[in-house]
Amino acid sequence: PFQTSPQAIRLYYFYKHWAMRAATYVFVCVHLSLALFEEPALFPLPFWATSIAEVLCLTVFFGRLVHFAKVTPQMVFWKDTKNICIMVTIVLTLIDLIIYGSLEAVYIHSVRWSRPLRPVFLINFSESRQIRRAFRSIRNTLPDILYVFLLFLFSVLIFSLMALKLFGDRGLRTAEGASYFTNILETAFELYVLVTTANSPDVMMPAYNFNWWYSLYFITYIIINTYIFMSVFLAVVYNNYRKHLKNEIRKLAYLKRHKMIEAFNILKVKVGTEFMVKEATWKRLVKVVAPDISSSHLELLLRISDEGQKGHVDKTNFLRLADLLNIQVVTINIKRHPLEAWVPRVYQSSASLLIKKMVRHRIFIWVYDVIILINAIFIALDEKNPFISYAEWLFLSLYVIEILLKLYTYEPRAYFGRKQFWNWFDMLIILAALVATVANATIQSARKYNSQQILDIVLILRILRLLRVIVSIQRFRVIVTTLINIGPTMLTFGGLVFVVYYAFAVIGMEAFHGKVQFFDPNFTTSDALVCGNPALKGSAFARDRYCKNNFNDLASSFIVLMELTVVNQWHVLADGFALVTHQAAKLYFILFHIVVVILIVNIFVAFILEAFFVAYSLEKSELETAIEKKIQELG
Amino acid sequence: PFQTSPQAIRLYYFYKHWAMRAATYVFVCVHLSLALFEEPALFPLPFWATSIAEVLCLTVFFGRLVHFAKVTPQMVFWKDTKNICIMVTIVLTLIDLIIYGSLEAVYIHSVRWSRPLRPVFLINFSESRQIRRAFRSIRNTLPDILYVFLLFLFSVLIFSLMALKLFGDRGLRTAEGASYFTNILETAFELYVLVTTANSPDVMMPAYNFNWWYSLYFITYIIINTYIFMSVFLAVVYNNYRKHLKNEIRKLAYLKRHKMIEAFNILKVKVGTEFMVKEATWKRLVKVVAPDISSSHLELLLRISDEGQKGHVDKTNFLRLADLLNIQVVTINIKRHPLEAWVPRVYQSSASLLIKKMVRHRIFIWVYDVIILINAIFIALDEKNPFISYAEWLFLSLYVIEILLKLYTYEPRAYFGRKQFWNWFDMLIILAALVATVANATIQSARKYNSQQILDIVLILRILRLLRVIVSIQRFRVIVTTLINIGPTMLTFGGLVFVVYYAFAVIGMEAFHGKVQFFDPNFTTSDALVCGNPALKGSAFARDRYCKNNFNDLASSFIVLMELTVVNQWHVLADGFALVTHQAAKLYFILFHIVVVILIVNIFVAFILEAFFVAYSLEKSELETAIEKKIQELG
Repeated sequence: PFQTSPQAIRLYYFYKHWAMRAATYVFVCVHLSLALFEEPALFPLPFWATSIAEVLCLTVFFGRLVHFAKVTPQMVFWKDTKNICIMVTIVLTLIDLIIYGSLEAVYIHSVRWSRPLRPVFLINFSESRQIRRAFRSIRNTLPDILYVFLLFLFSVLIFSLMALKLFGDRGLRTAEGASYFTNILETAFELYVLVTTANSPDVMMPAYNFNWWYSLYFITYIIINTYIFMSVFLAVVYNNYRKHLKNEIRKLAYLKRHKMIEAFNILKVKVGTEFMVKEATWKRLVKVVAPDISSSHLELLLRISDEGQKGHVDKTNFLRLADLLNIQVVTINIKRHPLEAWVPRVYQSSASLLIKKMVRHRIFIWVYDVIILINAIFIALDEKNPFISYAEWLFLSLYVIEILLKLYTYEPRAYFGRKQFWNWFDMLIILAALVATVANATIQSARKYNSQQILDIVLILRILRLLRVIVSIQRFRVIVTTLINIGPTMLTFGGLVFVVYYAFAVIGMEAFHGKVQFFDPNFTTSDALVCGNPALKGSAFARDRYCKNNFNDLASSFIVLMELTVVNQWHVLADGFALVTHQAAKLYFILFHIVVVILIVNIFVAFILEAFFVAYSLEKSELETAIEKKIQELG
Repeated sequence: PFQTSPQAIRLYYFYKHWAMRAATYVFVCVHLSLALFEEPALFPLPFWATSIAEVLCLTVFFGRLVHFAKVTPQMVFWKDTKNICIMVTIVLTLIDLIIYGSLEAVYIHSVRWSRPLRPVFLINFSESRQIRRAFRSIRNTLPDILYVFLLFLFSVLIFSLMALKLFGDRGLRTAEGASYFTNILETAFELYVLVTTANSPDVMMPAYNFNWWYSLYFITYIIINTYIFMSVFLAVVYNNYRKHLKNEIRKLAYLKRHKMIEAFNILKVKVGTEFMVKEATWKRLVKVVAPDISSSHLELLLRISDEGQKGHVDKTNFLRLADLLNIQVVTINIKRHPLEAWVPRVYQSSASLLIKKMVRHRIFIWVYDVIILINAIFIALDEKNPFISYAEWLFLSLYVIEILLKLYTYEPRAYFGRKQFWNWFDMLIILAALVATVANATIQSARKYNSQQILDIVLILRILRLLRVIVSIQRFRVIVTTLINIGPTMLTFGGLVFVVYYAFAVIGMEAFHGKVQFFDPNFTTSDALVCGNPALKGSAFARDRYCKNNFNDLASSFIVLMELTVVNQWHVLADGFALVTHQAAKLYFILFHIVVVILIVNIFVAFILEAFFVAYSLEKSELETAIEKKIQELG
C-alpha cells in the first residue's frame, strides 16, 4: 500500500534509510527517558528543560509521520490506527504540557497525566511490528477471557460472603492480631490474594486453629480458584494465541503471494502460450533484492527455479523466489589446515598425528569435564588461600592449552565458522575468564579495592566459565539451542513488559512518590524503622524492611513492579502503599496483577509452550528439501 | 487375554461381579485407613488390632490375585507388572509386620517402613485404570524432564556460587538478623526457594538495600529459572502428555478393532461370496452386551448397520457396533402438559396464556436476576436485624413461585428430563435454600446453638443460592458445563494426588511426629509460643503460628502437604521441621515440591489445557452424523 511514482519511491527509500530509523529510535528513547529527569527524578532537571526536550521529540515524531503520509496513499494513511494513535497522543501531550506549564507558572502543582501515554510512540512506529502484534494478540484475547474473569470474580465474591458469615462473628485474630474476615471488601481482597497464593497458609491459620473443619473451606477455594480458574485462564489465552498466530501467518502468506503475483505481472513476457520471466530479468531482480548473494548461490537458485534450463522462469517457480531467498545456504570449503601448508612435515609427523587423534578422542572431552568440576570446587573454596589463587592460573592455562590443541587439530576457519556457535561460546568464555583473572591479579597487586563493580564483574566472569559443562553434554546443548532460538521473540515480550511497566511506573510515581522513604539499613531510628511514614507503624511492610521498594524514581518503580510480577508478597506491598495513601490504592496493584500476571505472563508461557512444540516437531520444509535435492544432483 | 473355557468365563463373571469389586474397594480403603489408627494416630488402637486388620486385608488382596490368576493364562499373568507389584508389596508388608512385631515384643521401637507402599494396592487393582494411566504418563515424562531438570539444577548451582562470592563476605544481614549467603548449601536452598517465588522479594532486600545494582542479579535469576525453566518444564510435561495420550488412544482403538474382528470371526456365516452376521445373531449379541437397550433404539442401530435391510450385517458395519452403542440417543416424546389434560379450559384461558407468555419472556429472567442480586446484598447485611430475616422468607417464596410458574408453563417431565442439567441445578439450589432456612428458623426458635457445624452448613447453603446467577448467563453456563465435563478426569488427579500424599504423609509422620505441638491459640505461655519445642525459638515457623501444621496425625499431615502444594511459605515449614530434626529434613520438602508441583501440577495444567482445546474444537464425529442422518431419513 505505497505510492509507486519515482518521487514517492525515493521518499520511501529515504523513510526506510537506516539513519532515519535510528534517529527515530533515539528520539523515542530520549522521550521515554524523560521520566528519569522529571519529578520524582533520579537526576532532577528543571521543568523548562524537560518540556523543551519533550516538544522537540514530539516535533520529530510529527515530522516522521508527515514523511510517512507522503509515501502512503491518503486513504490508507487515514485508515491506519497507528497514525491516528500517534496524532492523538501528540495532541494530548501538548495540551497536558500547556496546562501543566501554565499552572506551574502560578505555582499550582498539578499532574502530568499524559506521561503514561509515552510508550504509544514506541509501539506505533512501524519498526516495532512484533510488539504491536503482541498487543493485538492481547486485545483479541480480551473478549474470551472477560467472561471467564467475570465468573472467577463471581466465585471470589460468593466465597467472600461465606467467609464473612462463617468467620466474621467468631472474634478470631490473625497472627499479627488483626481482625479476621470482618469486612466484605477486606475479605474479598484477602481471598483475591489467596488466589495468587501469596498469603497461603497464613490466611487459613486462624480458622484452622479454631476448628479442623474450616480447612475444607480453604481447600475448596484453592482448588476452584487457584488451580482450576488459573489453568482455564492459561487455556483461554493459549487457545487465542494459537488461533491468532495461525491467522497472522495466513494473512502474511496471502500478502506475500499477492505481492509476488504483482511483481510477476510487471516482469512477465509471453513465451509460447504461457507467461514467463526471462532468466536475465530474474537474475537482475535477485541481485536488486539480495545485493550480496554469491554467484554460486544465485546459480543454484536459478537451477531450482528453471529446472529444464530453458532460459525462463515460470509463474509457480517465480512465486517461490521469496521463500528460496530466505533459506540459508552455507558454502563449506574443505580447506587444508594452514600448518599443513606451512610445515607439512611436522604437521604430518607421527607425534602430531598422535596429538590430533588424542584431541579428537572422547576421553579428551571427559578429562576437561573433570577439570571444570575440580575448578568449580576451587571457586567455591576460599580464594584468599594463596594455593588456590595459584591453582586459578593452572586452570586457565589448561583451558588455553585446550583451545590451542583444538586449533591445531581442526582447521581454524572451519572451527570458527559462522554456524559453529558452540565453539565461539567456548572461546569467549575462556577469553572472558582470562581477562577476568588478569584484571583481578592487577587489582589485587595494586591493593586498591576501589571499584567494587569491576571486582563483581570479574567474579561473575570467573564463575561463568563453568558454563563450559553445557558445551560437552549433547542434551544440554539441544535445550540451550532451543532457548537461544526463541530468544529474539522473548525480546518482544521484553518490549511488551517494558511498555506496560513504563505506564504503570509513571502512574505509580504520580500516586505514591515520596510517601515511603528509604534510610540506610544501619539506621535504627524510629523514623527509619517505619520508612519515614508513621502510617506504616506495625505494618508488615515496615517489619519486612521493604522501604526501598518505593515509587520515588523510575528505577525503583521498575524494581517494585518486577516484584509484583513475581507475585509473592505483593499484598504486603499493596497494603503498605494503601496505608500511606488510601485503601483504593489496592486497585492499582490488583489491576497490575490482572494485566501482567494473568494476561502477559500467560501469553509468555503460551509462547514458550508453542515454541517448544515447534522445536520438538521441527522438520524440513518442502522447499528446503527441494534445494537439498538439487545440491545432491549437482554433486 | 483371558481364558475362554466355560468354567473360566464363569470365574471371570464372578471376578467382575459388582459385589466382589466393591469388597475389594472396601478392603483397600480399610487398609489405607489403618494409618488413622496406628501411631501417630488420630484414633489410637493397639498394635495387635491394626496388625490383624492388615493381615486380613493382605489375605483378601492375595485371594483376589489368585482369583485373577485363575481367569488369566499363566503367561499373561506373570508378564503383568501389576500382579508382580501386588505380590512383592504383600511379601514386603508381611516381612515388615514380623520384624516390627518381634522388636515391639522386646520393647524396641522401630519403623513401619512398608506403610508408604500401601497405595500400591489402590493403584494396581484393575478397577483404577485411570490412576495407572496417569502414573504411566508421569513415568514416560521422566526421561525427557530429567535433562531439563539437571540443566536447571546446574543453573541454580552456578547462581549459588555467584551469590556466595558476591554477597558472602559483605556481612549483610536479613530482616530477621540472620547471616546472608554465607554457606553454599543454605544459599542453594534459598535460591531453590526463590525459583518457587516463595521468598521473593525478602531474599533480595539485603543486597538491594546495600546496592541498587545487585537487583540485576536477582532479576536475571528469576527470568532464567522461574520464568523460562518453569515454562520449559510445563512444555516438556505437556508435550509428553499429548504424545502419550495419542499413543494410548491408538492402542485402545487397535485393541477394540482386534476384539471386534475376533467376535465377527466367531459369529460369521457365509452369505454369497462374503462373510456376514445374521440379523438375529446380531440382535441377540446387542441384547447381551446392552441388556437395557430400548427396542426402538435397537431398531435404529439395526437400520444403520444393515442399510439395505437384507437381513445381514457385513463386517464393516459389525465393527462399528461398539462405537454405535456408545452414542447416547435420547428419545423425546413431546407430551401435553398434564394440566392441559385435566383442566383444559382453565389451562387454555387467556389469563393462563398470558402467564405462560410472561414466564417465557426474557424480562422474567432479568427480573429474577435482579432479585438474586438484591438477595445477595441482604445476605451480606447483618442477619440479626429482624427485618432482614423476614426478607429471607420473602426471597424464598419468590424463588418457589418462580419454580411453580415454570412447572406451570413447561411440561414437567420435559423440564426435568435427564439432559436438563441446569433445571435440576436450579431446583436443587432452591430446595437446599428452603431446607436451610427452615432448619435455621427451627434452631433459632429452639434458642440452642448447640451444633455449630449444622449452622455453618445451613449458612453455606443459603449463600450457594446465588449460584443461580450462573444459570441465567449463557456464557457462564458454557464455561461451567466444560468444567463439569472434565470433572471425572479431574477426580483421577484427585486419586493420583491422594496416592502421593499418602506416601509422603506416612513418611512425614515417621520422621516428624510429636516434634511440633499445637496449643490452644489463647495460650500464651512460652512453651505454646514455640510450639512446645525450644528449637523453634525465634523461627519464622513459630512467629507465624504454624504449630498446627504438623505431622502428628494423618489429617494434619494431609493439610500440611496441601499447603506445600500451594507452595507459598513452604520454606518456612521446611525450615521449621529442619530446626526440630536435622537440616537434611529439607530434602523431604524439596522432593515433595519436585514430585507434586513440578510433575503432578504441571500434568494437571496440561490436562486442563488439552480438555479446553478439545471442548473448543468439539465437532460431531462421523458416526454421530450417520445416526442423525438415519433419524432424519426415518423422520
